[in-house]
Amino acid sequence: MTAPSFDVSVWSALHLKRVERALERWIPQSAPAGLAESMRYAVLDGGKRLRPLLVMGAREAVATPQTESSTAQAMLEDAALRAACAVELIHAYSLVHDDMPCMDNDVLRRGKPTVHVKFGEAQALLAGDTLQALAFEILTPLHQEPSEPAMAPPLQARLCQVLARASGHAGMAGGQAIDLASVGLSLTEEQLRQMHRLKTGALLHASVVMGASCGNVSDAALAALGRYGEAVGLAFQVVDDVLDVTADSATLGKTAGKDAAHDKPTYVSLMGLERSQQHASDLLAQALAALDDSRLTNTHALRALAHRVVDRSH
Amino acid sequence: MTAPSFDVSVWSALHLKRVERALERWIPQSAPAGLAESMRYAVLDGGKRLRPLLVMGAREAVATPQTESSTAQAMLEDAALRAACAVELIHAYSLVHDDMPCMDNDVLRRGKPTVHVKFGEAQALLAGDTLQALAFEILTPLHQEPSEPAMAPPLQARLCQVLARASGHAGMAGGQAIDLASVGLSLTEEQLRQMHRLKTGALLHASVVMGASCGNVSDAALAALGRYGEAVGLAFQVVDDVLDVTADSATLGKTAGKDAAHDKPTYVSLMGLERSQQHASDLLAQALAALDDSRLTNTHALRALAHRVVDRSH
Repeated sequence: MTAPSFDVSVWSALHLKRVERALERWIPQSAPAGLAESMRYAVLDGGKRLRPLLVMGAREAVATPQTESSTAQAMLEDAALRAACAVELIHAYSLVHDDMPCMDNDVLRRGKPTVHVKFGEAQALLAGDTLQALAFEILTPLHQEPSEPAMAPPLQARLCQVLARASGHAGMAGGQAIDLASVGLSLTEEQLRQMHRLKTGALLHASVVMGASCGNVSDAALAALGRYGEAVGLAFQVVDDVLDVTADSATLGKTAGKDAAHDKPTYVSLMGLERSQQHASDLLAQALAALDDSRLTNTHALRALAHRVVDRSH
Repeated sequence: MTAPSFDVSVWSALHLKRVERALERWIPQSAPAGLAESMRYAVLDGGKRLRPLLVMGAREAVATPQTESSTAQAMLEDAALRAACAVELIHAYSLVHDDMPCMDNDVLRRGKPTVHVKFGEAQALLAGDTLQALAFEILTPLHQEPSEPAMAPPLQARLCQVLARASGHAGMAGGQAIDLASVGLSLTEEQLRQMHRLKTGALLHASVVMGASCGNVSDAALAALGRYGEAVGLAFQVVDDVLDVTADSATLGKTAGKDAAHDKPTYVSLMGLERSQQHASDLLAQALAALDDSRLTNTHALRALAHRVVDRSH
């Protein structure tokens, strides 16, 4: 189904550049007492940016250049870029807080010292808090440049709505709470799935829904994209668990083998390595089938991203 | 200027009841792994609720029952109640995180053990993170009851916009960063003012602006209400510093004398007790003058709240 002319590397490079530039611009250059430095350190120059790319891929899938006016198109592209950055800020804040001594107590992230190692715990706590607030600032622009298209307020509200729910008690933070509470316990497969559906899946799913909200999409297509997002979200975690066993720290850019060291339940500890790998392949198939169900035609990027999630080495 | 018929105790009791009920309903009863318990503990059954009352007072000042349809009125009242709860959740999350060992390391809050003492540090970190997300969830309702008036999306976006900015790097979190960095340093009066303008003032100011956004208000009146919010915000902190010296822990419901113990710069350490008390009175006068400038007539509650901020004993 991938068009012969679609090159995911070119597509990713293009969109990553836009996202990096936007993050560079929207994260403050200066803020009181070292806050800008710790925020920028936490976000810039690192990370796979999977969530932003999912936002961009979903926007691309629902874009209808033939019916959107050029003004509307520019506004929706700007909105998608804001959504991409906002979701990455939420992801980044969660990593900063999860790495803290009272949580996972991790010292290495993306091949660099974690934020609390570099700047101290108090600054890490504050940087995370501030990144969360900044995500919602970016989604509700105050003074846009005259050259920038003004984002429609109902779309601002919709994006805040999706992002807040995906990050909170019924999403990422809820999953993190289960994760914390489950150390040393044996979970059932269903409990493990529920933990990851919240902890990682909710934000990946939200990325797709936010991108798909930046355009005109039928309820049926939106639901199908949502199922794609869920499958990709689960696949991501299964592969993460597999890599924690099969890869080394240098390749991962974070401490390998730490799940086992922390006695955390994982897909591999529950299903074994081979069944976990098979499970990831099944989830990939589900994700691709959901894209077929959407009846959207311009899903090349989303297809390629699903493959990348499952085939990645880090 | 206070109408003889206006009784602030009656007014506060009425609105506090509405806010408590709404918080009780909007903070989840159940969430994964103890998260609901720590979130509820952090917010319910405690606190002066000054910020929610400022939201309600500002909404009351801009309400025009004679021109708002009953549907619009119900929607705006609901929006103000949501804004009141959202701003209180942000305040509550900031207290949870500020009390943690890596920040102020405080064990007593509102006369009860702090969240990390009661539930552990990891849970406190997560509860704070989740309360911040919940604030934005409440401002962007997803499935409102059929009996509830659907909040206009542009108003949702506007309230998220104001709240995110007041909590982030250019607001509360920025002030907290200055506070952290200033321990043991001698600040000028202007630096101290800037710290408090961000740390406490931004959210108090936002409370007034959010309430005033729930109605039809001229730019001039909104600006005047903003000046009221700023003056009240600064007065609040000056009085806080005074009480830290003059009151005991039992009256405060938190550890008294901790600013001096932590070698933190305060208005009292900078200006002395008498000049600080005078400064608070001056700020009260400024706040009341700003209300006069607004030319709004129904400002009895805001007037009374400004008095309460300066005259309080805890």
